[in-house]
Amino acid sequence: MSEFNLIQQYFTRPTPHADLGVGDDAALIRVREGYQLAVSTDMLVSGTHFFADAAPYDIGWKALAVNISDMAAMSAQPKWATLALALPEVNETWLAEFSRGFFACADAFKVSLIGGDTTRGPLNISVTIMGEVATGQALRRDGAKIGDDIWVSGTLGDAALALNLLQQTYTLDKHWPEDELSKWLPALHRPQPRIALGLGLIGLANGAIDISDGLLADLGHILSASNVSATLYFNHLSINLYLHNHANEPAVQHMILAGGDDYELCFTAPQANRSAIEKIGKDLHLTLSLAGSIHAGAGHACVVLNERKQAMAINKTGFDHFA
Amino acid sequence: MSEFNLIQQYFTRPTPHADLGVGDDAALIRVREGYQLAVSTDMLVSGTHFFADAAPYDIGWKALAVNISDMAAMSAQPKWATLALALPEVNETWLAEFSRGFFACADAFKVSLIGGDTTRGPLNISVTIMGEVATGQALRRDGAKIGDDIWVSGTLGDAALALNLLQQTYTLDKHWPEDELSKWLPALHRPQPRIALGLGLIGLANGAIDISDGLLADLGHILSASNVSATLYFNHLSINLYLHNHANEPAVQHMILAGGDDYELCFTAPQANRSAIEKIGKDLHLTLSLAGSIHAGAGHACVVLNERKQAMAINKTGFDHFA
Repeated sequence: MSEFNLIQQYFTRPTPHADLGVGDDAALIRVREGYQLAVSTDMLVSGTHFFADAAPYDIGWKALAVNISDMAAMSAQPKWATLALALPEVNETWLAEFSRGFFACADAFKVSLIGGDTTRGPLNISVTIMGEVATGQALRRDGAKIGDDIWVSGTLGDAALALNLLQQTYTLDKHWPEDELSKWLPALHRPQPRIALGLGLIGLANGAIDISDGLLADLGHILSASNVSATLYFNHLSINLYLHNHANEPAVQHMILAGGDDYELCFTAPQANRSAIEKIGKDLHLTLSLAGSIHAGAGHACVVLNERKQAMAINKTGFDHFA
Repeated sequence: MSEFNLIQQYFTRPTPHADLGVGDDAALIRVREGYQLAVSTDMLVSGTHFFADAAPYDIGWKALAVNISDMAAMSAQPKWATLALALPEVNETWLAEFSRGFFACADAFKVSLIGGDTTRGPLNISVTIMGEVATGQALRRDGAKIGDDIWVSGTLGDAALALNLLQQTYTLDKHWPEDELSKWLPALHRPQPRIALGLGLIGLANGAIDISDGLLADLGHILSASNVSATLYFNHLSINLYLHNHANEPAVQHMILAGGDDYELCFTAPQANRSAIEKIGKDLHLTLSLAGSIHAGAGHACVVLNERKQAMAINKTGFDHFA
């Protein structure tokens, strides 16, 4: 199979949002008047972002989903993506499943694949996502205000728990009635970017970030960009029952606060908007946890308090590919 | 060095064209009213697109230049780029030189690096380039018309000759007075995308493509997209003196017609525009060769005639990563 036929067969679909899609030197799109284009890129590498033998459908889904999550964090409506793919060989079974997962995510979020590149090389997936946001309305990291509430969507730590179980770096309590890995795996393999939440927060939130590198690391980016500090209440965070029952274990605390791969949003908003934000959560059937508050303080410090209001010692603040 | 510091130190520069650059979940840009956004992605892999021990400055330059070349082929003005980079290790000497080469090219073509990603993995460089083109003015592959002239910019085969010499798959005629590799290397390592030409051709040319995969392969894309056929005159193509003196060798013919890595433009234009196109070449000090013509014919065939008007037998039509 030639490179040309490979692109034709697996990666060429109708692109209703584009003036010109896959197949020329460049794609052509039009951004609506009054909108900015939001652009983000994420690269996924075998062994670092997914297991080499992971299901190709899941790899395809996740490669696009993690990029769409960056649009959610900017309150942007994702519309277009490009895909650059290095493959060690042409494995048509793998490619068919990968593209099926990729386009399942694209369809779910109304994203058109408008261009890309394929080459031979160690497996590498690089996606650039583009979306529209009304000019000036994007939720940025530098928008948090003193006195803001800190909110977190979804439940934290599911993906990190699943990953630790798969890697056998954590063992479930043997008294736990059943192995619920299958419940937690979707958080790791099929993350659901919070686009509807991000769009709903326009006009209500002041700052936002997606917490793919772990809550503390990513909240830290908001704090330094906004030049503020924060207090988080550990027991206000939403977590699954297993993690709840084992929340005194440092490894579990780490999964929740710094595990990464939670494609949820952390955002800050004025207290006056609490009921409007709660309504969004109800409408979306999505847990939104009021988990802390923003303070003055140029130290950009985040204190995490346990249920007895004691500061918790957290040994690592996030995922860093080169740390 | 952490991932965050690495991005901060090597890849964060002022981004005058962007509302928001590197450092948030996404960059924010504005496309001018009346313009389309042209988007293209190219991925470069060690061992396939460059030697693992190639000068990092050259790798940085070329990674951006090959993407900018796609903008030239669409008559777009490049403005923004994202860079996703997988690195086997943090080698600061390498990174400093890579980013110096990348930004030298960015500065030369007024491109802002607005976002990206870095991760650990086998060396892989994925760039997405974005530019503006007046709505409806892009030069597409499907625009060639029967009776059009076929034009080619620059000299062909220099990069392929340099590559073959480096790989020792071709040896210079021992009677050739000197080893001129240093003259031909820049075509391979520091390609000069033809942005000024691409912009100048708006309103004059009907179809265009960059010939990075080799003239015959890329002209073939124009022919099939436009549903026409073509005749090329081999001795009308501009080539360097060495290739000219050895143009009877099949290996040399292959370098010229199918070698690839020539970041030149092949475009088609009505005969009535010949003098206007010649003037562009003069103004840009760029060789523009009138090398053939477009005919009717759904076979999408390109016949290459030698100086005796005999059809030449060409054994391979272009570079394919999976052929």
